[in-house]
Amino acid sequence: MNIAVAQSGGPTSAINASLLGVINAALDSKEIETVFGSFYGIEGVINNNFVNLNEIFESEYNRQLLRQTPSTYLGSCRYKLPDFEKNPPVYEVIADRFKEKNIGAFFYIGGNDSMDTTDKLSNYFKQIGSDIKVIGVPKTIDNDLYCTDHTPGFGSAAKYLTACLQEITRDASVYNMKSVVIAETMGRNAGWLAASSCVLHKCGNKAPHLIYLPEVEFSVEKFVNDVKAQLSKNDTVIVVLSEGIDIEGSTYMSENRDEFGHGFLSGGGKFLENVVKKEIGCKVRSMELSVLQRCSAFMSSLTDIKEAEQIGSAAVKEALRGTTGVMMCFERISNSPYEVKITTVPAGKVANYEKKVPTEWINKEKNNVKDIAIEYFLPLIQGEQEFIMENGIPKHIIANN
Amino acid sequence: MNIAVAQSGGPTSAINASLLGVINAALDSKEIETVFGSFYGIEGVINNNFVNLNEIFESEYNRQLLRQTPSTYLGSCRYKLPDFEKNPPVYEVIADRFKEKNIGAFFYIGGNDSMDTTDKLSNYFKQIGSDIKVIGVPKTIDNDLYCTDHTPGFGSAAKYLTACLQEITRDASVYNMKSVVIAETMGRNAGWLAASSCVLHKCGNKAPHLIYLPEVEFSVEKFVNDVKAQLSKNDTVIVVLSEGIDIEGSTYMSENRDEFGHGFLSGGGKFLENVVKKEIGCKVRSMELSVLQRCSAFMSSLTDIKEAEQIGSAAVKEALRGTTGVMMCFERISNSPYEVKITTVPAGKVANYEKKVPTEWINKEKNNVKDIAIEYFLPLIQGEQEFIMENGIPKHIIANN
Repeated sequence: MNIAVAQSGGPTSAINASLLGVINAALDSKEIETVFGSFYGIEGVINNNFVNLNEIFESEYNRQLLRQTPSTYLGSCRYKLPDFEKNPPVYEVIADRFKEKNIGAFFYIGGNDSMDTTDKLSNYFKQIGSDIKVIGVPKTIDNDLYCTDHTPGFGSAAKYLTACLQEITRDASVYNMKSVVIAETMGRNAGWLAASSCVLHKCGNKAPHLIYLPEVEFSVEKFVNDVKAQLSKNDTVIVVLSEGIDIEGSTYMSENRDEFGHGFLSGGGKFLENVVKKEIGCKVRSMELSVLQRCSAFMSSLTDIKEAEQIGSAAVKEALRGTTGVMMCFERISNSPYEVKITTVPAGKVANYEKKVPTEWINKEKNNVKDIAIEYFLPLIQGEQEFIMENGIPKHIIANN
Repeated sequence: MNIAVAQSGGPTSAINASLLGVINAALDSKEIETVFGSFYGIEGVINNNFVNLNEIFESEYNRQLLRQTPSTYLGSCRYKLPDFEKNPPVYEVIADRFKEKNIGAFFYIGGNDSMDTTDKLSNYFKQIGSDIKVIGVPKTIDNDLYCTDHTPGFGSAAKYLTACLQEITRDASVYNMKSVVIAETMGRNAGWLAASSCVLHKCGNKAPHLIYLPEVEFSVEKFVNDVKAQLSKNDTVIVVLSEGIDIEGSTYMSENRDEFGHGFLSGGGKFLENVVKKEIGCKVRSMELSVLQRCSAFMSSLTDIKEAEQIGSAAVKEALRGTTGVMMCFERISNSPYEVKITTVPAGKVANYEKKVPTEWINKEKNNVKDIAIEYFLPLIQGEQEFIMENGIPKHIIANN
């Protein structure tokens, strides 16, 4: 038989490692002949837009390039598979495509929206008595998927953010004056990424002096007092602000929504920069760490990249064992030495839910993260990739689509 | 005798390597006893705020930490030394401090403003018949210093920018739709950093599709036509915009000026994002690469770091030969194999001037950089540092000041 694989949702620097994991397991299996990559998520299946991945990734050189290339080799989509009752033909088209290409299993690497698709599609195949397996492989820098200890992509984003914040702290501390930096992180409605910056405290940094998460209420007045209190003790105050925070008085909860109803949440940092200017009057700079948080590979976590590859391979083995309708998960056995095992959970349990940062990790002033959280984050950001370089920068592999 | 060293102007990821070069040459010299670091630039001399660097950097471990720590170990200042006629006492204070500490030479690592200080101070010491030498060590990510082939710090910023733009291009290309990304770079009134992104063309990328430099006129109308033309050929259009561009109709030429009269120039990208939204209507995102361009060490250029260290050491040797009032320079012998030699130029020739990108490197449509420029930039971004890591991120060394 053949298999198909697609990537969905926002990019990460580990999502291609999971694709590589699927390819590797298929190349190693006697039962699987060809791995078809579907361009632009499930839309590539519907539009018959496939590529034969065996041919490209027989070469170890290309496999390494895939491992080190961030973002989605196969492209992505934000297409939401409608409920079966509302649009049976789209399910029939997908079934036809799989039949044409003799596809016995489909692997969807993505976030909670992709798990919704995994759930719907696997239920459809069960209902029509088809033997096709559908398995979800988790991916998101937001780390907000239920039932898994953490998600591939998160560790690299956390490592990048923490390393950047350390550098930003150095940069902000050069002048002999009071100053505030507000760094706005991604993470949607969950504060995992912002919270991960608490690892800096373990490195002897007081920064981030303030970390604000969407898991607790935010008050502009309290924010101003928090910053003033920190400025009385420190020349430079580093504030980490999760994009998902609902700031009263700010108009940043914004105009655009995608097909899943997600809004673009950033802009709170700029709003608070102006608050600091007005209420405190010291030097202040806000910055959005922007898409580099999710797509920067050169400070990626080797632990994350390896795990992303392993969970992709595990998905293939799980399908070969006859499982369908699940998402692959990490279960943490211990922090030190760090050990995880790979398990499964019904995709329907994951779809459309968001896992939040435990409130017991947040300090009682609700403006920082307790040391207990460091034990969770620290193992996820360990190790560095080695890169094939070309012309002074990491070499990428790009699909001809 | 003893020597003193200070750092000035904006941070770079190589300015501590130049400090290390000064320390290394002093440790190797029989004539020099102690290296005093002055905190916060020349202000540390005036305020008697010194640190004994020999004690800290006898250890090779600490020397490696200094090499890999971005931004200024000794802090920085934007203090402009007034003309002697306007404020003789400040010169006398500096001379007294040097006398107290038996300082025979002062090394000022900085940009063109620091060369102004180097020039004034060396002239003063000559006039009063003092034997104290003053030597400038170049530093700026803007690469805008006269008389040197390039400046330490620039190669690392160029490598970081180019690597980031490649990643941003991957990130922007995931969806099957037309989109525009406008990445705003630093560089003040010179387009060197923005221009360096042309190296991506050598890596098989069409991106950046458009590069706008302050060396040529900018028209919003032409910009819109340029973007439309690129969108007709490409799904994703990457635009690099140098912060120093004067955009008609934009109000971004901004409120704040520092003591050297420099304004904060950023904001043009956001302005043009709104122009694209209104005039073209496709998906568009602008981003400021912000301070990470200048202070991110983990994609720094090994060539740059090594040269920064060498030029710091060369400055000490030059002072020991009796030279004063100069800035150390790089003269390029050849591109391939890459070879430079270190020379000197009177600091007064460098102070307060800006070197621009040669207009013959800019294409005739004035919206990109010709391949000829790649030969200049490419050698400067070669090689990667190895880092001492701690807790998953590069370890930094921080002064107790």
